[in-house]
Amino acid sequence: MLIRPKTGILDPQGEAVQASLATLGFPVTSARVGRLVDLEVATDDVQAARVEVERMCAELLANPLIESFEIVAEEP
Amino acid sequence: MLIRPKTGILDPQGEAVQASLATLGFPVTSARVGRLVDLEVATDDVQAARVEVERMCAELLANPLIESFEIVAEEP
Repeated sequence: MLIRPKTGILDPQGEAVQASLATLGFPVTSARVGRLVDLEVATDDVQAARVEVERMCAELLANPLIESFEIVAEEP
Repeated sequence: MLIRPKTGILDPQGEAVQASLATLGFPVTSARVGRLVDLEVATDDVQAARVEVERMCAELLANPLIESFEIVAEEP
């Protein structure tokens, strides 16, 4: 799953990345840093797994106040 | 871009996530935690932008010894 700081939420890590890239001469207009969590769930039911992963995100892995998340399912 | 710990590299953050999810009763067999960096590059040439972003990754954003990265291009 992909976890990003919501639009409008301050992202000091992203600002540092953008400033460093600019110093090195890379023409980047914006940088935002988020988290990536790869989970393996043992199931045959992709739909049910997606619902479970959504609960994991909302309850543990993301902070819904300041972060948005996106779930990308990949079958083995 | 998506930055992941390479296979075989210890990922204590991922292990903590997996242990916490297991404690909460979620049947996750593996969890790996990486970073997600969204960059905006002002250019019309997607191919050239991809080459630039690859350089940024290799030189600044990822540690090629222990991390692998994947670039996903999105047009506005």
